[in-house]
Order: sequence, then C-alpha cells, then structure tokens
Amino acid sequence: MLTANALSDFRLALGEDRVFADEDARACYASDETPRSVVPDAVLFPVSHEHVVALARLAHQHGVALTPRGAGSGNVGGALPAPGSVVVSFECMRRVIEFDPDNRLIVVEAGVVTEDIDRLARSAGLFYPPDPGSGAYSRIGGNLAMNAAGPRAVKYGVTRDWVLGLRAVTGDGAEIRTGCRTTKGVTGLDLTRLLVGSEGTLALITEATLKLAPAPEAIATLRLCFDSAAHALDAVSRIMRQSVVPCALEFMDERAIDAIRPTGAADDLAPGTRALLMVEADGSSADVPRQIEALQRALEGPGLLEARSGFARDEITRLWTARKSLSHAVKRIAPLKINEDVVVPVTRLSGFVEFIDTTAEALHLPIVSFGHAGNGNLHVNLMVHPDDPDEMTRAHAALDAIMSRVLELGGTLSGEHGIGTEKRRFVPLEITPPTLALMRAIKQQFDPRGLLNPGKLFPE
Amino acid sequence: MLTANALSDFRLALGEDRVFADEDARACYASDETPRSVVPDAVLFPVSHEHVVALARLAHQHGVALTPRGAGSGNVGGALPAPGSVVVSFECMRRVIEFDPDNRLIVVEAGVVTEDIDRLARSAGLFYPPDPGSGAYSRIGGNLAMNAAGPRAVKYGVTRDWVLGLRAVTGDGAEIRTGCRTTKGVTGLDLTRLLVGSEGTLALITEATLKLAPAPEAIATLRLCFDSAAHALDAVSRIMRQSVVPCALEFMDERAIDAIRPTGAADDLAPGTRALLMVEADGSSADVPRQIEALQRALEGPGLLEARSGFARDEITRLWTARKSLSHAVKRIAPLKINEDVVVPVTRLSGFVEFIDTTAEALHLPIVSFGHAGNGNLHVNLMVHPDDPDEMTRAHAALDAIMSRVLELGGTLSGEHGIGTEKRRFVPLEITPPTLALMRAIKQQFDPRGLLNPGKLFPE
Repeated sequence: MLTANALSDFRLALGEDRVFADEDARACYASDETPRSVVPDAVLFPVSHEHVVALARLAHQHGVALTPRGAGSGNVGGALPAPGSVVVSFECMRRVIEFDPDNRLIVVEAGVVTEDIDRLARSAGLFYPPDPGSGAYSRIGGNLAMNAAGPRAVKYGVTRDWVLGLRAVTGDGAEIRTGCRTTKGVTGLDLTRLLVGSEGTLALITEATLKLAPAPEAIATLRLCFDSAAHALDAVSRIMRQSVVPCALEFMDERAIDAIRPTGAADDLAPGTRALLMVEADGSSADVPRQIEALQRALEGPGLLEARSGFARDEITRLWTARKSLSHAVKRIAPLKINEDVVVPVTRLSGFVEFIDTTAEALHLPIVSFGHAGNGNLHVNLMVHPDDPDEMTRAHAALDAIMSRVLELGGTLSGEHGIGTEKRRFVPLEITPPTLALMRAIKQQFDPRGLLNPGKLFPE
Repeated sequence: MLTANALSDFRLALGEDRVFADEDARACYASDETPRSVVPDAVLFPVSHEHVVALARLAHQHGVALTPRGAGSGNVGGALPAPGSVVVSFECMRRVIEFDPDNRLIVVEAGVVTEDIDRLARSAGLFYPPDPGSGAYSRIGGNLAMNAAGPRAVKYGVTRDWVLGLRAVTGDGAEIRTGCRTTKGVTGLDLTRLLVGSEGTLALITEATLKLAPAPEAIATLRLCFDSAAHALDAVSRIMRQSVVPCALEFMDERAIDAIRPTGAADDLAPGTRALLMVEADGSSADVPRQIEALQRALEGPGLLEARSGFARDEITRLWTARKSLSHAVKRIAPLKINEDVVVPVTRLSGFVEFIDTTAEALHLPIVSFGHAGNGNLHVNLMVHPDDPDEMTRAHAALDAIMSRVLELGGTLSGEHGIGTEKRRFVPLEITPPTLALMRAIKQQFDPRGLLNPGKLFPE
C-alpha cells in the first residue's frame, strides 16, 4: 500500500515530474499484453541508476511493493501490477552508456529498446542476436527479466547468452554489480544469469553489458509446404541430424494456415498445404547458398509439396508473408488468445502436435500452433471467448492436459515467455519441492520484505 | 573433523570398499595441481547419485566438511582438501545415463572424463565444444564446478554455455534438479548457471544434461610469426574487427618462445620471431578455405614475419608443435609456476602485456605469458623458486600489481581456472561488498552448516 508519506518521499527523491499518481496515468500502466488489469497505486519514471537506488530504498522503508516494467509487451503478466503496488517504468532510462565495437560490447540502461541495440551494433558491422517478436518496442530490461528469445535462438541462443554483466538494485536498495566486461570470467557466483529470467523478483536491473556478434554478410530463406504437420516435423528432425544450423526454423500448423487464408497471405502456398516450415540460413555470401543447398537436401522427404527459396531482400520478405500475417489473423478467430509457449524435445514435436489436435477435437476448442520448431518451442494458442464459461472450463482442462503432456515428454512449461502470473499454478509440476524451496530462499536474500514483483514466477 | 562414528556411518551407507581412511589413500588425495597439500581425513568414492545424497546427509548430521573432487586437475586449489575434511571423489561415477544424438544432448554422471563425452558425441556426427587443456583426464563434474574452458571458447563459449540441466545434492542432503532437457526453458530461477562455476561450494553435482553441437566437417590452422607482442596483439584486434570468428586464437610471448627453444620446437619459426599467434577456423569443407583467407587478410600488417597454413591433419599437428610443447618447457625455467589466467578486454591486451614485461623486468622475475587472446584471456606464469623467500616476496608484489592492473583495464581475475584457495584474497578487489554479501547469503541457503568445499571461492 502506498501511503501519502511514501508518495511524498518518492516525489522528493525522483522529482515531481517523475511520479504519477493520477487516475489516467495509473490506468495506462494497469496491464501488459495479458488480458487482465490491476490499477497500480502510482507510476514512477526513474531516469538513472541512482533514482532506482533511491526508490528501492524508499519502497523498502515504507513497505511498498514494486512492479518493474519495460514496454509492457510481455504476455504472462510479468509486468501486471500487484494489487497495491507501484509500477517502476524504465521507459526513461534509454541511454547507451558505452558502445565498444572493437571489444564487441555495449553497455545500456534498462529502458533501451531492443532493436535500437541491434541497429547501433549493425552500424559497426555487428549485431545483437536475440530477436523477440516485440523487439521493435520491448525494452532490454524486460528482455533480461524474462530471458526473452525469438527465431534466431536456434542458432544464436537466448538473451541469457548475450549478457556479460549487470548493474542492479536489490529489494532493500543495495547496489550490486554482477559479471564482467569480457567474454570469459569466473570470479564469484554467477549472479548475472541468476538475475536473467528472474522476472524482476530478485532485483531491479538498471544497466546491462551485452555481448555483440559479427553481423552475417548474407541471409537466405526457404519456405516449405508440407501435406501434414507430422511430415513437416519429421523434416525438422532431419535438419537436426545434419550439420548446418539454420538461423530460423519456424513451423505453422494447419489451423494457423487456415487463420491466414482470409487475409490472402496463404494464396501462394501449394495446394493441399497443411503445414509450413520457414528455414533461414545466414553467414558469408559465399557460404549461404551452400547452407541452403544442404538444408534443402535434408528437408526433402515424404509430404514435401513445394520448396521455395529466396536470396534477395524482397523475395525473403515475400516468403515470410504467411508467417508474419499470423499474429493479426489469429486474433480474428476468437477474442481471447491463451498463448502457451511450451517446449518439448525436437524429436517429440510431431507426437505432441498430434496430441494437441486430439485434445482440440475432444474439447471442441480451436487451437492454433506455430513456433520455433528448431528449439522444440511451440506456441500453442487456445482461441476462446472469455464470456463463455463452458468454453473457458474446457480451455482450462486443455491447458492442464497440455502441460502434463509437455512434462511427460521431457519438456518445459515455457521457452521464452516466462511464468509471470499466468503459469504459476503449473510450476510445481515441473520443479521439485526442495528445488523450489531453494529458489524461494534465494529470493528472500535479494528481497527480504518481498517487495519486488510479488505474485510472479513463484507458485502461491 | 571426522569422528569414528561418522566414519562408520559412511561405511555403512556406501559400503566398506567405498570409504578409505588409510594413510596411503589419504596421501593420494592431498592435493590437486596447486603446489600445496592438505591430507584429508578420509576419501569417499560414491558410485551413484543416491550414494551422494546419503553421504551429504551424514556429513550434515555429523558436521563433516566435504571436499568434492573430479580428477584433481585444477590449479587454483579448488579440490585441495580443507583441513579436517573428507574428499568426495567422483571418479567412480562414470556412467553415460543417456545419449540422444537426435536431440543433441547427453546425460552423464559427474565423473565422466571430458574427452569421453566429446568422443561419444563425435561417433554420431556431433561434438562437445568445451576443451580445457586437461580434457583427456578431467572429469565433467570438475569442469562444471569451475566453469572450465579452452581455446575453442572464442567461438563456442565455455562449459556454462553447454549445460542444459543438473542433478545435485545440497549441503544438507537435499536433492535438487535444475534446468531442463531442451535448448530453451525459462521456468523458475536459473539455478543451473548458479551452480556452474560455484566451485563445489553450493552443491555436489551428480549428473549433468549437456548440449551437443554438429561436429565441424573441416578444420585448418594458421601459425603466424610476429616481430613483437604488440604487433601480434594488434593483429588480434584486427581479427575482432572482421566477421570470421576463429575457433582458436592463441598467443605466445617472447619468453614463451625462448622457453621452447631448447626443445627444438622453435626451430622452424621465422628468424626474429618474438611473438606467435595460432589461429584456427572450422566449418564446412567448402567454407574453411574462405575463412582462412579472410583471417589471413586481417592478420596481415606491421611486424608479420611469416604466415603458414595447414589444412591436413599432419600439417596442423606440425604447426601446433611450438604451442603444445610449451607446458612442459616452461617447467624447466623454475620449479614453481604461479599461473594466473587473468582476462582483459581484447583491445587492452597489448598494453597489458607491455605492463607485464615492465613488471617482470623491474622485479627481476621471469614471467611467461600465453593464452586465449581471442577472449582476452592471458595465462601469466610467474616462474619462481619457492625456497627463495626474496623471490617469493617479489612474486607476490608482482601478483598484486598485475591483479590491480587487470581490474583497472576492465578485466577479471580469472577466465577459466577459478578462484579456489589461490585467488581468494583478490576477490574483494573485483566484487563489491554488497554483491559479495549476497553471494555469501546464497551459499548459506544451499549449505547452512558451511560444509561444502570450505575455504574456496569466497574471501576469508
């Protein structure tokens, strides 16, 4: 709860113009991409690490819960305000503190937009590999908190793999520095990766030192039409059995293709297409055609109806049309999308998709599946009407069945979206009680009063 | 302290033949590669995860400190027994629990030899990238505890980057499972990377799920003779400014070359060579020659006396002779090698090596430097006579100066060897007090009685 005293202290510390407690501002920060909202008691806009230290100390002193927030582009409720909490928006912390292309690193404040980092890196022949779908507006602090990822993860890994060090503020306002500025470093415990993916429950990340990679010279794309999901996913397994690692390996199931038909984006798919793969390769101009050839060889097999390749930018854009139109198209199926980004071992994908189809049919629910097949990371979207209680009951039954099956198959609840508020109830299915007890004990060390992003990540 | 009661309980739990308390056995486990020894009270040889759970519970109950140990190949005292402790040797836990090439993963017990993992992976067209110098005999558990790395780290990263999940036992005997079996997963806090590099102070790792990569089809090597360290290290910076990432980028300074002269291994170096670079590229057979060409172009510049390339296995072996003969040759300079594996930003290497030369001269100490230049990871070897107190005093002064300079340059105390007993006193120079306090608080959660590898990693 935010008392008048606490509010006035925040104003003193950050300045009047950095603390908003009016109804409009609070309403603007009541939700992220999750279909839920909780109006916070106030919104703070720190502009510096020092501001964050000050506000964390005041929050600790007054017992005010804090909900850290980047762009609010997450979809598991990671930035959904806890009741009675104050949102800490990092939007105004957008400075690039240091850009050192010769050492392939960049130091940024938590509010820098993900794609701005990539853009700056590319100006010096480098790039920042993690490419979450929200990269055009998401903030790096949010990416770090959730360990975000995107299609390129299959070749380049996730946010965690590109962080060298962090500056952060714990729940009692202590300033910590983790990691280092070099690509190797083993001094002390690895608090850097402990903070990455901790969903703001351990500390407020204020600055990050990120590693950059040489930008690939060329890129090329394959679009493959298959007669069934099973055949497409068998091809994914074949890709894993040869040596070329694609920089994207995306899958769309039949319902996803059906969803884009009304938009015209499926018009140029081969007749009878019931599953689509998008495969991309990057590297030197000389090597990319060889990679594409090797990938094409591996992709050939039962059920492949058509393979198209694109090497020029406009060809590539055209080939991606079907996949890129999906997000909007899906929304037309039903007003609410329950989006689960589960992961199963790549060789189990085919059986898992079959299970989803059976579940969808048995429960009369439209379920659209697509995702990062090369990581076994499937986005399973239950399209529902939230005002239809019977449908919602069936959706919850489907979710329970899906999560259990994911774990039976040796998978994990979330590949990139995180737990937030939405998946908390499933966590005990995956994490054993003593392991979870240790996680809670660690949380307690960082945040003794339990003020940092309460109600997230940990089950109730 | 090991009481007769505790010893008898260990024997009951593990079996008579798994517990050694005789003088000979204890003497065999009194040291690792650090020039120091402490005779442990006993040596335990668990053969299973369940054994480790049992022994940890007994240790907790009786208050017996445990010193976990792989092959004892570390050189910072990570496996040096704490006084009064019992060594837990993982040598007998050598089972490959699961090898799943189709999902590019392997599950192994902690005592499996590092290179055996790589060998098995290669039998299926895959490989395990981390390649510590001790890989032929080191155990994966030790690699995980220390976050080991080797030359390939410049392209493929360190041990941490190849671990998906762990099974481990905490100081009070709780069994934990961390991470997952897939290449993406964000459920809960990242305890996997917290354990990696924690030097056995948080938990006893019993099993690891490791990620594997497609084995490169071809490899080729460049050996480059330079007229000075500065010119060689300028060339390293030029490598970082272009897009081909070599899979090894090793440096040897003049004193290192001098050290190998008596062995004949320097006979085929160009006259006037005062620094050597070894650069390697791997990938598809078609692409490796192109990479070598690009690397050669970047390496050309002032002071390059000679560049030789090797594509066939025997040529490559011949080119590596100078570098591979170094470890043994160095030992002839003086009886004791104080080996510091500091890291500085790559662009600072040249100035740092100059500083080392000045320090060596001022303090009349032979210092041999070589290492993984592509990561800025230099092995600085002070060659000393431990029975010469004056020389030892100068060596300690040199160490202090070197560590301070490393941190001034934005570097870190250790790139791959770890802290162990040997670098504890320097840790507070790098890690801030509140950060260190958090690390200690975390340790306390995993190991409430402080029994796991006491006297390591944390400063006194």
